[in-house]
Amino acid sequence: MSIRIVFLGTAGSIPTQSRSLPSIAIRRKGELILWDCGEGVQRQMMMAGLGFNRRTKIFVTHMHGDHLFGLPGLIQTMSLLHRERKLQIYGPAGLQPYLEALERTVKYNLTFPVEVVSITEEGPICVEEEYQIDVAWADHWEPAFAFSLVEKCRPGRFHPEKARALGVPEGVLWAKLQQGSSVILPDGRCVEPKGIIGPSRPGRKITYTGDTRFSPSLVQLARGADILIHECTFGDELEERAFEDRHSTPTHAAETARNAKVKQLILTHISARYKTIDHLLKQAQKTFPNVKVAEDFMSIDLPLKKVS
Amino acid sequence: MSIRIVFLGTAGSIPTQSRSLPSIAIRRKGELILWDCGEGVQRQMMMAGLGFNRRTKIFVTHMHGDHLFGLPGLIQTMSLLHRERKLQIYGPAGLQPYLEALERTVKYNLTFPVEVVSITEEGPICVEEEYQIDVAWADHWEPAFAFSLVEKCRPGRFHPEKARALGVPEGVLWAKLQQGSSVILPDGRCVEPKGIIGPSRPGRKITYTGDTRFSPSLVQLARGADILIHECTFGDELEERAFEDRHSTPTHAAETARNAKVKQLILTHISARYKTIDHLLKQAQKTFPNVKVAEDFMSIDLPLKKVS
Repeated sequence: MSIRIVFLGTAGSIPTQSRSLPSIAIRRKGELILWDCGEGVQRQMMMAGLGFNRRTKIFVTHMHGDHLFGLPGLIQTMSLLHRERKLQIYGPAGLQPYLEALERTVKYNLTFPVEVVSITEEGPICVEEEYQIDVAWADHWEPAFAFSLVEKCRPGRFHPEKARALGVPEGVLWAKLQQGSSVILPDGRCVEPKGIIGPSRPGRKITYTGDTRFSPSLVQLARGADILIHECTFGDELEERAFEDRHSTPTHAAETARNAKVKQLILTHISARYKTIDHLLKQAQKTFPNVKVAEDFMSIDLPLKKVS
Repeated sequence: MSIRIVFLGTAGSIPTQSRSLPSIAIRRKGELILWDCGEGVQRQMMMAGLGFNRRTKIFVTHMHGDHLFGLPGLIQTMSLLHRERKLQIYGPAGLQPYLEALERTVKYNLTFPVEVVSITEEGPICVEEEYQIDVAWADHWEPAFAFSLVEKCRPGRFHPEKARALGVPEGVLWAKLQQGSSVILPDGRCVEPKGIIGPSRPGRKITYTGDTRFSPSLVQLARGADILIHECTFGDELEERAFEDRHSTPTHAAETARNAKVKQLILTHISARYKTIDHLLKQAQKTFPNVKVAEDFMSIDLPLKKVS
């Protein structure tokens, strides 16, 4: 099943008429993952038809308002809609006091548990059966993080006709072979999965930088990603300003994409000063050709991978 | 000069694709007054071309998130745009700890002073040279307030030909007459402004209820208003639900309008359950004919009044 990436907000720190504040939704099977949660995200989710009752995890890159002022309204609306499922929010250690202060000063009448997980170091922060979320430091106003969604390999394709030819009876033993284990048949023979199960199929990988300067830790995090979603606040002509404010230019993003050997680069977090984005695209393409500039409600479907 | 009312957000507690969360902008001369400040208000202000550097006062009716989660983003954007002018925010006593908690947990880098005024009782909360803002209790989850913008009377029209005919020399003495004072001429005669100055011209009045049940205090507050902006969360068919949740129906709003003898009624804070609003309008019209249901970006110009 495809992963769908929906760009809910592609603005920099200030929204524009066409760009809402930063948030990216990833729909994977029944689950929703949000990367950052800028003001207006609940309404953008409505427009995108994403719903408020899914299994949901939110990952906040850093404690700047433009990346998290959408949280309180989203939580309140989920409560007004009587959500009961736990909501998991991962982010810098400042997230917990922020949410506690909100709950203390504005009554939410929460109808569901909110679990806040503080990120304090690099590595996997969330390990699920089929994927994990890896964290790296971003080079922004600390603490700031970047995230990768990394799917685990899926077992190879099962060939029932080969299992039958080897006399493996349908049922429990087929399931074991599908999981990659060898099995002992009733007649005492040992059958290996090799030949009955095709080669394992690689998972997909999506990396999101949040706000950052160019940083080797992000090249490492994005290594081999199918899609790298990289901030691009300033054009190359404002490289000095980007450095001072700890942001990136199209060339910085493209260098990360090239060095990490990703398949596609998407630029987002576009400064309100840019009414058109052609020059940002051209600046990036000089270094990395397969690049797009995100716009609100742009969506990308990333199908399951075949054998590599 | 006209007062312009712009409906920035006309939703109830949950936004919809077409309605943003509650906020109403009043542009009067160079000043901007916001009534409530729901999530997304900064972007709605952008869409409406209102700007972020005007003299601005924000009045928050009560401490529910849908009426104030737009404050942090608005304050942050004003700072990013290097506003230096003071921002005045009036509301329940809970507003100060809410804003302090935000400033403590999320760094704003404020570039301007924010003055928070706690409202604790009925009466005028803000008295300016040309207008004042009056407060009344609303019948919602306490503390909840409703507001009236009440302009003072303007002096009557000055008739220069009459001043000349009476031999009043142009200059300081004309100015005194225009202010309504009598003057002594160089030849010793006393000239009264009556006859030279027309009758004084009444100011305009706009009332906004915030969330509320029907309440006599609001009839009092809205008395004779040019425009009453009244919440209308539920249709008449959900009157019991409205009572339980401390909200109003079209008939409640229309009764307040009729009893207060206002000129026009605008219904806002429309529940997300209503995709069309015709029946709300009809329900209100039975009691008060001059009524509209607000929609986002609807604007109303209220010209200066002539002599009544």
